[in-house]
Amino acid sequence: MAGNITPQQEDFSRWYLDVIREAELAENSPVRGSMVIRPYGYELWEGIRGGLDRRFKATGHKNAYFPLFIPMSFLQREAEHVEGFAPELAVVTIGGGKELEEPLVVRPTSETIIGHMYSRWVQSYRDLPILINQWANVVRWEMRTRPFLRTMEFLWQEGHTAHATAEEAMEETLRMLDVYADFAIRDAAIPVIKGVKSDREKFAGAVASYTIEAMMANGWALQSGTSHYLGENFARAFDITYLDENNEMRYCHTTSWGLSTRMVGAVVMAHGDDQGLRLPPVLAPIQAVIVPIWRDDAQRAAVLEMAARVEAMLQGAGVRVHLDAREDQTPGFKYNDWEMRGVPVRIEIGPRDVANDAVVLARRDRPGREGKTFGVPSAGVVEAVRALLDEVQASLLEQATVAREANTHRVEDYDTFRQVLDEQGGFIRVHWAGTSEDEARIQDETRATLRCLPLDVPEGEGRCFLTGAKTDKVAIFARAY
Amino acid sequence: MAGNITPQQEDFSRWYLDVIREAELAENSPVRGSMVIRPYGYELWEGIRGGLDRRFKATGHKNAYFPLFIPMSFLQREAEHVEGFAPELAVVTIGGGKELEEPLVVRPTSETIIGHMYSRWVQSYRDLPILINQWANVVRWEMRTRPFLRTMEFLWQEGHTAHATAEEAMEETLRMLDVYADFAIRDAAIPVIKGVKSDREKFAGAVASYTIEAMMANGWALQSGTSHYLGENFARAFDITYLDENNEMRYCHTTSWGLSTRMVGAVVMAHGDDQGLRLPPVLAPIQAVIVPIWRDDAQRAAVLEMAARVEAMLQGAGVRVHLDAREDQTPGFKYNDWEMRGVPVRIEIGPRDVANDAVVLARRDRPGREGKTFGVPSAGVVEAVRALLDEVQASLLEQATVAREANTHRVEDYDTFRQVLDEQGGFIRVHWAGTSEDEARIQDETRATLRCLPLDVPEGEGRCFLTGAKTDKVAIFARAY
Repeated sequence: MAGNITPQQEDFSRWYLDVIREAELAENSPVRGSMVIRPYGYELWEGIRGGLDRRFKATGHKNAYFPLFIPMSFLQREAEHVEGFAPELAVVTIGGGKELEEPLVVRPTSETIIGHMYSRWVQSYRDLPILINQWANVVRWEMRTRPFLRTMEFLWQEGHTAHATAEEAMEETLRMLDVYADFAIRDAAIPVIKGVKSDREKFAGAVASYTIEAMMANGWALQSGTSHYLGENFARAFDITYLDENNEMRYCHTTSWGLSTRMVGAVVMAHGDDQGLRLPPVLAPIQAVIVPIWRDDAQRAAVLEMAARVEAMLQGAGVRVHLDAREDQTPGFKYNDWEMRGVPVRIEIGPRDVANDAVVLARRDRPGREGKTFGVPSAGVVEAVRALLDEVQASLLEQATVAREANTHRVEDYDTFRQVLDEQGGFIRVHWAGTSEDEARIQDETRATLRCLPLDVPEGEGRCFLTGAKTDKVAIFARAY
Repeated sequence: MAGNITPQQEDFSRWYLDVIREAELAENSPVRGSMVIRPYGYELWEGIRGGLDRRFKATGHKNAYFPLFIPMSFLQREAEHVEGFAPELAVVTIGGGKELEEPLVVRPTSETIIGHMYSRWVQSYRDLPILINQWANVVRWEMRTRPFLRTMEFLWQEGHTAHATAEEAMEETLRMLDVYADFAIRDAAIPVIKGVKSDREKFAGAVASYTIEAMMANGWALQSGTSHYLGENFARAFDITYLDENNEMRYCHTTSWGLSTRMVGAVVMAHGDDQGLRLPPVLAPIQAVIVPIWRDDAQRAAVLEMAARVEAMLQGAGVRVHLDAREDQTPGFKYNDWEMRGVPVRIEIGPRDVANDAVVLARRDRPGREGKTFGVPSAGVVEAVRALLDEVQASLLEQATVAREANTHRVEDYDTFRQVLDEQGGFIRVHWAGTSEDEARIQDETRATLRCLPLDVPEGEGRCFLTGAKTDKVAIFARAY
């Protein structure tokens, strides 16, 4: 067990903060609620960014960049939107030494400024669809912050699209939800559940909000990405109109979708264990670390020579490999250190391995001797490491899926709901025909929120666990970050 | 000549704004001084970003991310720094609906907040050097703005490093200057001049500022990237100290270096002509555009089939290719359109080309028939396009170098200086032993500024053109953006 990391069972929140600190992912800054993303955490974000950006481009989107500052009056044009965001705004009132006539809001999200630009760019149906994404920082004045999960400033992408019809906009909304789910499952190895948000939980200004919900190792939920169908709400507020084939003026239907540095927190909490991080190979900044082992100078030379050779082979094959040749640390220390940092595969090379021209592979997802493969010939190390990385990737997804299923409970009445929530936690799946007021009451009484109405409902029809009404709708409740 | 673009000779400033608008690189936003970077402009920035990021990583740097907001008190700790930036600050005074106790500055640059973090991270000489870069947006309240060249908010990278000794920090400063020059010359095809800034022009808080200066097509200078040796100035202000091998406390020596979306403006103005953009192939979002030509449906099918085949071949080879299959535009319109957008190579495919299984290649940097190659067999199109892209890249650099030399004037007295500046413009190279006051006077009288003291001085010793004093220093003066 890693010395400076609180066991998960003892205090999951402390475990999380310990891992963030020890693995040097992020650090608090002197600006209240803002964190510094340190290089190892930022590399993880670069992996996330790369995996998403590739998918956005493959689905026809282009990146662009819109202003950080938004005139206060813009936010006020969409009534629900301003109501939702007003309490969270950071406001610039002084520029160039002078009081500003109109205060500028530091963007909490960019529907309004982008809506304004789209109203200029869209004239005819021929200009549609507009499919644009922005990588940016946004600011929301949060009272209680936690690194990656909730910070005053965070990094994200926000897609904003405009379409001729409701159908096309809804297709886009669901396409991007699928893109998020595909990324989460394949790259982050997190078996997210796709669903729609309740009216109470939806985005301020949306007609419908879709989400991918992930389960963390403590059974809590984490909303990991959202895709919103905005209907004509922003088109009406910002006059995004077009002339259709019959020369009639119509409002566009718009969407927006976002995924943020929260995903880094999701990766930490979905896969981590008491030793620290366990990173999925697709996203891991370092996929394989080489730890050389020697006792004397003669061994040292031979071992380092072979280690460098193996490093070069893996680098040449595109594996993100690091050779830990530190002189002032023991192999045992290095094992623990890289385990804590979640590196998926460790390659051990000692004098005996040099003699056999072979290496030892150890996988992060299986502790101890069971996770080791001995005598891997150095000539076959690239194939062996690649295969092992694939196995670790699949195994993390499998473990997270098994854990999610084991921690998902189906209940049929509110008493059981409360009991299961208190005693076992996790996701509670119920038939649901309640109102927003019912949701609020459940949250007050249990601290669980309605995470989503999952799109995939194998249950069929049943009775609402709260009201007893017949319904084909299912809801997932959980305590959530 | 492109219809909507003012000729350069008539009005270079209007030419620039016309090109930015017609090529859809950027657009003014409703926020004073802030622009929207449109997809084509952002793709150009992505190319710049990619070329730099690769070089930063190859020289041992990691990316990280620091807060957007900086406490006002931080800026005030380095006297020259706050003096330089105070007039340009945007200040957040309200957060979450409440007046803030201490106003937060929207970062104009991040030496202060990063210096604060480094003081936490550096304890011993073993922690050094720290080599970190940040990709971020920054805000400087500018009175007169121009897209890409000077905007209130801009995107950039800022490298910040801490070292044990002055020598190492100076090495880093010059290494990153070389990285910028290498990028500018190889990727952007701009033959920049490396030099050191005068005291009057150096960064607020630096000991020495180095620059790459580019010449635009109108002979004006554009500072395109800067690398600063900060000495112990920020280390003393933020207490960045370490224990050396002898257990003695020392101040770090720090550097910072930045390159921004200005570089997009540099590419536009260094290479553009009266037809519009001319993009260097390394950075061009579209390297080759295929324009199919047909008269009737039978021709259309055959031409489009071959065009798609050529597109697939080029795509497969990693060429950024676009097939312009628009039905409602003539080939002639498309030629002009893509010329205006600066695409380096055009591939024309008509019925005769289909019959010959060959294509026509046209290069953007040479107008008319002279720039065309006829009868390129489709089987060899990948090699031919690649070779042509290399040629265009080299040719743009060559043309810009020839233009720079032709527009660089060596003068020996102030009268000639003023006359040459007025009649010919361009860079004026002079021996220089003047003071900051002399510089200010020259600027007042001629609107030319001292761009840099170039590192490479083939001239040897001479007499200052202003004071007549003997000196081995050379300065470049020019009107500048």
